[in-house]
Amino acid sequence: MTTRPLRRPAAASAVQDAGCHAGPDHLCMPEDARKRAARRLNIARGHLDAIVRMLDDPDAYCVDVLRQIKAVQGALSGAGEVVLRGHLEAHVATASTRGDSVELVEELMEALKYT
Amino acid sequence: MTTRPLRRPAAASAVQDAGCHAGPDHLCMPEDARKRAARRLNIARGHLDAIVRMLDDPDAYCVDVLRQIKAVQGALSGAGEVVLRGHLEAHVATASTRGDSVELVEELMEALKYT
Amino acid sequence: MTTRPLRRPAAASAVQDAGCHAGPDHLCMPEDARKRAARRLNIARGHLDAIVRMLDDPDAYCVDVLRQIKAVQGALSGAGEVVLRGHLEAHVATASTRGDSVELVEELMEALKYT
Amino acid sequence: MTTRPLRRPAAASAVQDAGCHAGPDHLCMPEDARKRAARRLNIARGHLDAIVRMLDDPDAYCVDVLRQIKAVQGALSGAGEVVLRGHLEAHVATASTRGDSVELVEELMEALKYT
Repeated sequence: MTTRPLRRPAAASAVQDAGCHAGPDHLCMPEDARKRAARRLNIARGHLDAIVRMLDDPDAYCVDVLRQIKAVQGALSGAGEVVLRGHLEAHVATASTRGDSVELVEELMEALKYT
Repeated sequence: MTTRPLRRPAAASAVQDAGCHAGPDHLCMPEDARKRAARRLNIARGHLDAIVRMLDDPDAYCVDVLRQIKAVQGALSGAGEVVLRGHLEAHVATASTRGDSVELVEELMEALKYT
Repeated sequence: MTTRPLRRPAAASAVQDAGCHAGPDHLCMPEDARKRAARRLNIARGHLDAIVRMLDDPDAYCVDVLRQIKAVQGALSGAGEVVLRGHLEAHVATASTRGDSVELVEELMEALKYT
Repeated sequence: MTTRPLRRPAAASAVQDAGCHAGPDHLCMPEDARKRAARRLNIARGHLDAIVRMLDDPDAYCVDVLRQIKAVQGALSGAGEVVLRGHLEAHVATASTRGDSVELVEELMEALKYT
């Protein structure tokens, strides 16, 4: 595992969370991105609940269900964008000052791969 | 709206649901696909709950959250595949015998568009 | 391999190609979809040529290249939609009358999987 | 437009191209990524040529064409990954030292959006 020093460069505009235990081996998600991603995922969860209820009805029609699933996938993509943007700003854009560019880029490319 | 006659061709292997009110204007999702899609969406919902809880922790790390969101998107794609397969077998493959090919294909292409 | 009889149901609106050797084991792409997909792929090829030339320039900027690649991917998706629509209309919608629904749906689900 | 100073931080491992006119307003693609992306795009182009020729044959089958289009899309995604990785390493990971994090992240999020 790579070591990631606590020191944050001044250029990082992302607000660091009070409860964050950032340390040599850990970077915390910016609080704003964390809150906004949670809000979006909560909405997606409500939407998913509605699809599950919809599937209790023997009259449900396939294409209606497909459309609803696509809508939830869109909401999850939106939450993923919030997280990715926060990560790029707070951690990737500051990587060369911490010296962990190679690890962070490798890790991110891996995480983006499986859609 | 297109009219879709109740008559089902013998070739449709999909089991029709007892509670389905299929009629001139309505096709019901095959029961098997409906049950299996619901099971998969329930699992995705549990996974989504776990991500929302994960985001309560100020120590959450962006890339971990990204990976979890991707996993739920994969589960939703799996549920979507179940629904699509059921629709192709029960409704699209039998369209020319009902005479609603044009409408069904148009509707499906539209539903598949937004990923 | 499944056998696919030459007989085409009247419901298939797709024009069958003069040169098509459709037979027990073969379905041909509707001529219109074939011509339109070729036109779109030709345009995508020209665009791809332009990106390759762009990459000869040491001043090329990553994000410009990324955007151009996305544009070609969009063009390929458009060509894929033309092919899919033709296949659904000419072959999937008529499957139950030929008796090869199971094979056609299986084959299509497999082909749609790898995006 | 944002100004991007020529000065490169030592942490950037990407080899800078001899012919690159990087300056206050311009970042050049790392030479290695540029060469590798070009190679992959050339292969994709050859593959695309083969599909266009395949579509000259009235016997072409829809699902075969769909599969080939997917294969080219996969090749383009691979080329896009090479470009993205180079950009993250050479430009995004060094953004906070240049002071253009906000612009680079915004630009990248925008470019990643349209798949």
